[in-house]
Amino acid sequence: MGSEIPDIIISRLPIYLRALSRMLAAGQTVTSSQELGKRLGISSAQIRKDLSHFGEFGKQGTGYQIKYLVGQLRRILKVEQEWPVALVGVGDLGHAILHYGGFQDRGFRIALIFDSDPAKIGTVLNGYEIYAVARLGELIQTQAIVLAMVAVPAEAAQAVTDELVSAGVKGILNYAPLNLTVPDDVRVQYIDPVVHLQRMTYYVTSET
Amino acid sequence: MGSEIPDIIISRLPIYLRALSRMLAAGQTVTSSQELGKRLGISSAQIRKDLSHFGEFGKQGTGYQIKYLVGQLRRILKVEQEWPVALVGVGDLGHAILHYGGFQDRGFRIALIFDSDPAKIGTVLNGYEIYAVARLGELIQTQAIVLAMVAVPAEAAQAVTDELVSAGVKGILNYAPLNLTVPDDVRVQYIDPVVHLQRMTYYVTSET
Repeated sequence: MGSEIPDIIISRLPIYLRALSRMLAAGQTVTSSQELGKRLGISSAQIRKDLSHFGEFGKQGTGYQIKYLVGQLRRILKVEQEWPVALVGVGDLGHAILHYGGFQDRGFRIALIFDSDPAKIGTVLNGYEIYAVARLGELIQTQAIVLAMVAVPAEAAQAVTDELVSAGVKGILNYAPLNLTVPDDVRVQYIDPVVHLQRMTYYVTSET
Repeated sequence: MGSEIPDIIISRLPIYLRALSRMLAAGQTVTSSQELGKRLGISSAQIRKDLSHFGEFGKQGTGYQIKYLVGQLRRILKVEQEWPVALVGVGDLGHAILHYGGFQDRGFRIALIFDSDPAKIGTVLNGYEIYAVARLGELIQTQAIVLAMVAVPAEAAQAVTDELVSAGVKGILNYAPLNLTVPDDVRVQYIDPVVHLQRMTYYVTSET
């Protein structure tokens, strides 16, 4: 299927979807690659080229019907459906993730949460029962969950990842500050604020 | 200066630094591009090529002295010094950022925190006094801070960004789920878990 489309293009689709969804929520009905590009700091030619991989979404001169394009991008990214996601680790970061309101209407729902702290296991947080990490494989398999977020300390992250992979998880969003080793059919995305900050300091000092 | 080096290369340097720092902390003294590549899922040739833009860091056959290479990467990324960073927004996410232990020994220190909630302003959190967003420009200029993290609701993020830019901030790590408009000499990095999850669902369903 879409496996021939370069990953760099796939990586921009959620950005387009986010911006278009905001336009839609603001009551806007039509946009252009120029307007979208200006908002995103991406050239309009790039946007048109990216979208052309997936079909014909706009007409020269009339632009894009936002609602239609949002629907198409949700279909392409497979987020018309709501994906259940497992969260492992309920420290400060896990709490922030649980309270984050942005998942549900964008295709995701936290369905299971885990921690290794005996004081937390069995308690209910924000409507979720916290399960022991020891039950991770069993519960994730039973619920056929394929996405997980790892918010445990770096020292525990690879072991947790190995268990997630064994249980059938295919996509991991890793907040622990280290690279994870996974089989080829599992994808990992990383969130590490320091990595992002260090990318900027390189330039900040060059320019001042 | 380094402005001719492609950004994609710069984006990998913090990843190399993170992995090498972990090796160093574990007591390891020497590594190879092969070992580093295996750990990171990047080819050894790519690592050697990336590093060659900045000098000669290893010898054929003997590999890299980790401590030396860590020092060089910190120098290149300008994180030998400790950068003061402003944090705007102290909700759940801001709390998680404040409690995050990973900044300090990697080149960053939260120096100022802001919120717009009158109930929070003037209180002390984790040793930091929370200042009113209204004082953002004044305090950031006085302390000559050039880096900021934005952890406010989407609706407030652009206005906060405009104030940060006016105050002289050159790098913004944005946690709000929208693209920010900034002048050319200001860089923005984005952290949005949904964008990362949507990048994976595209593939997860293609492969199953």
